Amino acid sequence: MTYKPPSRVRAGAPPAGSAALRRANLSLVLRELRDHPSLSRAHIAEASGLHRATVSNLMAELLERGLVREVGVEHAGAVGRPRRAVALHGAHVGALGMEINVDYIAVHGTDLSGRVLVERRVVYDAMGSGPDNAVRRLGLVAKEAVEAMRRAGAAPAGIAVAVPGLVDVARGVVTLAPNLYWRDLPLADQLASLLGPPRVPVRVDNDANLAALAEYTSGVAAGTPHLVYLTGEVGVGSGVIVGGELMRGADGFSGEVGHLQVDPNGTQCGCGRIGCWETKVGLAALVRAAMPEQAYGLPGMPVPDPGERVADIARGLASGERRMMMAVAQVGQWLGLGGSILANLFNPRVIVIGGYFASLAEWLLPHAQDQLRRLVVAAPAAQCRLVASTLGFGAASRGAASMVISDIIDDPTTIMDSPPRPAPY
Amino acid sequence: MTYKPPSRVRAGAPPAGSAALRRANLSLVLRELRDHPSLSRAHIAEASGLHRATVSNLMAELLERGLVREVGVEHAGAVGRPRRAVALHGAHVGALGMEINVDYIAVHGTDLSGRVLVERRVVYDAMGSGPDNAVRRLGLVAKEAVEAMRRAGAAPAGIAVAVPGLVDVARGVVTLAPNLYWRDLPLADQLASLLGPPRVPVRVDNDANLAALAEYTSGVAAGTPHLVYLTGEVGVGSGVIVGGELMRGADGFSGEVGHLQVDPNGTQCGCGRIGCWETKVGLAALVRAAMPEQAYGLPGMPVPDPGERVADIARGLASGERRMMMAVAQVGQWLGLGGSILANLFNPRVIVIGGYFASLAEWLLPHAQDQLRRLVVAAPAAQCRLVASTLGFGAASRGAASMVISDIIDDPTTIMDSPPRPAPY
Repeated sequence: MTYKPPSRVRAGAPPAGSAALRRANLSLVLRELRDHPSLSRAHIAEASGLHRATVSNLMAELLERGLVREVGVEHAGAVGRPRRAVALHGAHVGALGMEINVDYIAVHGTDLSGRVLVERRVVYDAMGSGPDNAVRRLGLVAKEAVEAMRRAGAAPAGIAVAVPGLVDVARGVVTLAPNLYWRDLPLADQLASLLGPPRVPVRVDNDANLAALAEYTSGVAAGTPHLVYLTGEVGVGSGVIVGGELMRGADGFSGEVGHLQVDPNGTQCGCGRIGCWETKVGLAALVRAAMPEQAYGLPGMPVPDPGERVADIARGLASGERRMMMAVAQVGQWLGLGGSILANLFNPRVIVIGGYFASLAEWLLPHAQDQLRRLVVAAPAAQCRLVASTLGFGAASRGAASMVISDIIDDPTTIMDSPPRPAPY
Repeated sequence: MTYKPPSRVRAGAPPAGSAALRRANLSLVLRELRDHPSLSRAHIAEASGLHRATVSNLMAELLERGLVREVGVEHAGAVGRPRRAVALHGAHVGALGMEINVDYIAVHGTDLSGRVLVERRVVYDAMGSGPDNAVRRLGLVAKEAVEAMRRAGAAPAGIAVAVPGLVDVARGVVTLAPNLYWRDLPLADQLASLLGPPRVPVRVDNDANLAALAEYTSGVAAGTPHLVYLTGEVGVGSGVIVGGELMRGADGFSGEVGHLQVDPNGTQCGCGRIGCWETKVGLAALVRAAMPEQAYGLPGMPVPDPGERVADIARGLASGERRMMMAVAQVGQWLGLGGSILANLFNPRVIVIGGYFASLAEWLLPHAQDQLRRLVVAAPAAQCRLVASTLGFGAASRGAASMVISDIIDDPTTIMDSPPRPAPY
């Protein structure tokens, strides 16, 4: 193989203390190995500027933790003596991503290399069930997934759960998930105790944040370093990738786009405020405009059988129903307006639209893109495209799994010292 | 002295190629030295994980470039043999920051350690003079500043210019500065050729971005890693610090807050759009509301003698004039609304208000803070404060100088190999 030098430059001060330094160096070596099929210790020393002996020492720890393996001999060109190479070896380390949303629970389990072991969607009325029942159900689904992954040889080393709401990430508490009627719910602790031993770290995060991570790692605009993901459900939220990193802000509450006031003379939102963006582009707003005869609730309020309603509207649009077309034009324009706020403030290259926005993208996008062009100050220099997500309902759980993998690579010492015997493969 | 280990952790892959790696390592050592009065080579090796020989080698280059100096002996506690220490030595390396705005040119020249050598504000009608005259005048002011810094022993190793508008940072071109009537102006090249040899790098950046850097390095909320700075002039822009770094977005156009549509039924802005935030909170909007008898132009359009107008309004407010109070209440509420957009999307800890917002903060802030509390979704969990800048007109030029310093520390190889004899001090 040919050694490709790493492409990311990140200057900066080294971490404090020798344990932290060692973690950072272990992480640095793992990152190298993630980005290449295999590497010799000498290559890693050269690329990292670390001393050769340090690299050998770090490698011994990674071998012991079962995170890397020897893969034979690498010949460094025509001359020079052959070097023993190592490669990432994550087949026995699992990462479990989950999502609980208004009407479903989704699961995405992979090993450290991202190979999918479990993928599942369970229809579940989380909104109507109340937090206690919902968490219990989430626990059952998690248990089944953990078992399935264990059978596949990769018990999860971490679990992350996506929730449609404000999350106190540091404490694993859902501060407010309006569409689930949750408030101050210590989800991480509750799920961990439902799962019992062996205890693995459980994290909770906002669904839009995790979907943005999934789009960045494997979606239609994968690798775009400045990217915004927009959920499109009854609620609307965004996850923001800035320079290849998920933006969190001071408290983890960045990207709260759904309740921006876009019309001071607008209607009242489910949240009590006036003229929120959700009252213009949330699924309830579309359903009310497209099917006024159904007399659904306030903008921003729940919609019965949301998937069915979107399918109804898509059918209406396909057969050219005028009221549907007008409703979609109107929502599309407001979608473009909100998109322009995101484009003006974050200057992303791409805004990926998910949820029902993606399902109806064909009809929404022309109106939205048009409005975006008119309202982005730096256009045409700042070229921001709206594109439909292709990840479907699995975006957030997929992003949750990839966050677990990042956590492990950031701190490989969270992996137990004596791994189970790797599965034969 | 006591050695305090560095506090910032930044894991990540090392840079490509050995020249880039060397630059990154030189930078890493300089950063260490910037954050401590002095350090021994052994301490630097320990903190960085670099091999001792590598550190000595890097240090030799930094000594040769005149960026560090030997400062004698450091005793590492009660035991152990004394170690020779080195310190940052930037007194002969200058950084020149400038700002050109509607009615003034500002200058802020420092040495590498941030010691101020030149600070000046020149009243100048840049708006009325046209780009050719304005650039010529900027060149003259720059020449005088370079001379003064040279006399102080620290010729600038780089120059950065702040401009109120959209800037193509990579090319040093002002794409659009509406209040200066500039469009596609290659300012960096023009200024460099006016200055002649010896050629130093000239950069151009947005004024709000650079003021945000200044607030982060030395303002009222210095060191707050999630911070937004808001300019308050005829135009309104923002600079955003995310995780201690200036956010730029895909093209350098992030933070364009002035032309967000906040009122679809609002008045037309100078930019042609409807209901831009500038039409609610720009200085023109305040002046029209506070002194309707003066019949100034459209919202978003120039205001004659802006400084005078703000002083008039402050006097009116101090004597309790009712119309002024009402105007400030109205602008304050819209200021809070725009602040809530910034708070919901960026989740900063602090929004620093500059320009005329700072001059009238006493009257604006109560209304703005009130509105902010109502409209921030994650409040009270997300505690975002509005605070008035204390840096005055010098914020952007100060930030420009600190960006030059960062550039030098990021790549010390831009400094010539044989520095001039340091000035005696």
